[in-house]
Amino acid sequence: MQPLFLLPGREKRILQGHRWVFNNEIDGRLPDFEPGSWVEVFSSKRVPLGRGYINPRSLIAVRLVTGPGQEPTREFFSELLRRAEEKRTLLYYPGSTCHRVVFGESDGIPGLIVDRYGDVLVIQVTTLGMARMQSLIQELMVELFRPAAIVCRNDTSVRRLEGLPLEKGLAFGELPEDIRVNIDGLELRVDPLGGQKTGLFLDQRDNRRALLRWIGGKRVLDLFCYTGAWGLAAARGGASRVVGVDASAEAVDQARSNAAANNVADRCEFIRSEALQYLRTLRKGDFDVIVLDPPAFAKTKSALPEAQKGYTDLNRRALLALAPGGLLVTCSCSYHMSEELFARALLQAARAGGRQLRLMESRGQAPDHPVLLAMPETRYLKCWFLEVV
Amino acid sequence: MQPLFLLPGREKRILQGHRWVFNNEIDGRLPDFEPGSWVEVFSSKRVPLGRGYINPRSLIAVRLVTGPGQEPTREFFSELLRRAEEKRTLLYYPGSTCHRVVFGESDGIPGLIVDRYGDVLVIQVTTLGMARMQSLIQELMVELFRPAAIVCRNDTSVRRLEGLPLEKGLAFGELPEDIRVNIDGLELRVDPLGGQKTGLFLDQRDNRRALLRWIGGKRVLDLFCYTGAWGLAAARGGASRVVGVDASAEAVDQARSNAAANNVADRCEFIRSEALQYLRTLRKGDFDVIVLDPPAFAKTKSALPEAQKGYTDLNRRALLALAPGGLLVTCSCSYHMSEELFARALLQAARAGGRQLRLMESRGQAPDHPVLLAMPETRYLKCWFLEVV
Repeated sequence: MQPLFLLPGREKRILQGHRWVFNNEIDGRLPDFEPGSWVEVFSSKRVPLGRGYINPRSLIAVRLVTGPGQEPTREFFSELLRRAEEKRTLLYYPGSTCHRVVFGESDGIPGLIVDRYGDVLVIQVTTLGMARMQSLIQELMVELFRPAAIVCRNDTSVRRLEGLPLEKGLAFGELPEDIRVNIDGLELRVDPLGGQKTGLFLDQRDNRRALLRWIGGKRVLDLFCYTGAWGLAAARGGASRVVGVDASAEAVDQARSNAAANNVADRCEFIRSEALQYLRTLRKGDFDVIVLDPPAFAKTKSALPEAQKGYTDLNRRALLALAPGGLLVTCSCSYHMSEELFARALLQAARAGGRQLRLMESRGQAPDHPVLLAMPETRYLKCWFLEVV
Repeated sequence: MQPLFLLPGREKRILQGHRWVFNNEIDGRLPDFEPGSWVEVFSSKRVPLGRGYINPRSLIAVRLVTGPGQEPTREFFSELLRRAEEKRTLLYYPGSTCHRVVFGESDGIPGLIVDRYGDVLVIQVTTLGMARMQSLIQELMVELFRPAAIVCRNDTSVRRLEGLPLEKGLAFGELPEDIRVNIDGLELRVDPLGGQKTGLFLDQRDNRRALLRWIGGKRVLDLFCYTGAWGLAAARGGASRVVGVDASAEAVDQARSNAAANNVADRCEFIRSEALQYLRTLRKGDFDVIVLDPPAFAKTKSALPEAQKGYTDLNRRALLALAPGGLLVTCSCSYHMSEELFARALLQAARAGGRQLRLMESRGQAPDHPVLLAMPETRYLKCWFLEVV
């Protein structure tokens, strides 16, 4: 394994638990390293820091995998996968069968995402180093979890940063025709190959449960509703009326059929529309609760100013449709959108409408997407429950 | 009502929803204002911003109460109190009878705290301006809520900043001998006159509920346990064994009697000890879950460096008593201890013990202590669920 030395002082972040080495922190020529190969990382004073894989063309040049002295063996990964799954099943009573199994760095396996939908596993590989290990990981998953199928969703654009192609397909087994999961009493159909991301947005699970306290007898608008999870949870939890809005015709169709499957079709309406366009048709007080769960507006740091405008505009419009006492559930899944920037965008939106906002609950990603405290980059989801005063 | 003009540009924060004017933002001589009197606040360009009360000797010279053009009448306060109570009863099923009714600025009444324990109300007045209105507020509370008693807990040291005396006593009615409240199935005895703060720490209510997911069959240590709420909730929720530790003999006695009242005395032990001293007696793996809910270490900004050391030391010690896979539930109720500083203290604590920390849940104060988004000062409680890796 090739040794790699850091520039003086650059070991500090690593020693605090961070797992990335940036390409300007390395003592030596990056082209001397084979893309995707294993390296052993040392401080400038030759203190071993652990082993990881390198991609010279990425800003994040090395992602550490093991601690000092540890070998990245088959058993090493097998144990990480086993432990990750074991932890998840305990999170949701009575033993979860639908959750994120592996969340990259937070589970010690950078570059790997695994979601479970019953006995179907969906895998997403985001780095070159992990791409080289994908077949080993799949092998271990078959061995440990005996899935009916493994779907590969390597069609996320972040792979481009690593020089990887975008692709998706069935990687193992046979895909059941109709995949349904039960999440907190809600039955949802999942399309791991054709759906967005890996099929569902599991990171909002606990937030949808937390919503139930706020929606008894209320009229709820679910914007960017996708296949309906927020709105259907609200309808089942006692909302008097639910409107879901999404720009995708497939998503809206699926949401309707999910509404029927959960016996709440009489209280739910799903509309195909752009969110902003739909908001413009509303008058003040049309809804008591509005859920805004948009896709990431700021995928990169440079997109931030534009993103902030986007969040402000969207939230301003939503606030106009809420009467005083109403509840805005507003989310951002951009890591680059810090709590502070998010608050600023919301305060601007509130000021434009002459409103005060009371933060009743400040929530994040579900615990099957744990945050590595030493890596702020693993903390991305903000879900705020705001009362309009 | 005396007019008060701000220095140029100082209206900005107010227009965004903040409710304080600092003593260096005022155009004019502070001694010209009568302490505790009402003032009408204008921007330097004579735009009216609202009315508030002034204390020339406080760093926070004016606390705004009304919006521009609004009069701080009896009806104005009556409506704020009525609405505050109405909101709270809806927060906890089936109609809460124990909660914070008024949380100062967040409810539009700066300088006032009101907690409800059944038909006993506890009031705390922290500013001179509000002290001048205390009898009106009490009168309104009697009118609106018909309490059996109103206890006054004006013995908090922040009153000294306003030049107010520390005192406590019965302000209205007759105090029942035995006050018990039921919080999420847990029966707790409350001593509104002799207990800490107003008798209980209501701000952790939702966090204690959130703990239940993590403690089935586990050995739980509850440090700074006071009268036992965290530990007893855990024992009732399925913890195999609970140890509570507090430095106060009265608190420990009360915790024991609460344990008996909740039929969990067989699984609970309460020990009178300093937290650090008790932690020193433990060995690695003695507990599966440790709850650290200390009093505020940083009551002022100048106390921060010392406070950070305190948090680091305490958490380091607690981590030494947890085996990998263990859960640390660690809190800070200091506003000055930002999330960033808190994370730094925890990372230092983890590094000293060679551990990684995974943030599973990042929680704040219960929604009967709402945060005014425009006033970061109203957001003070951090309660983090961290898994030790």
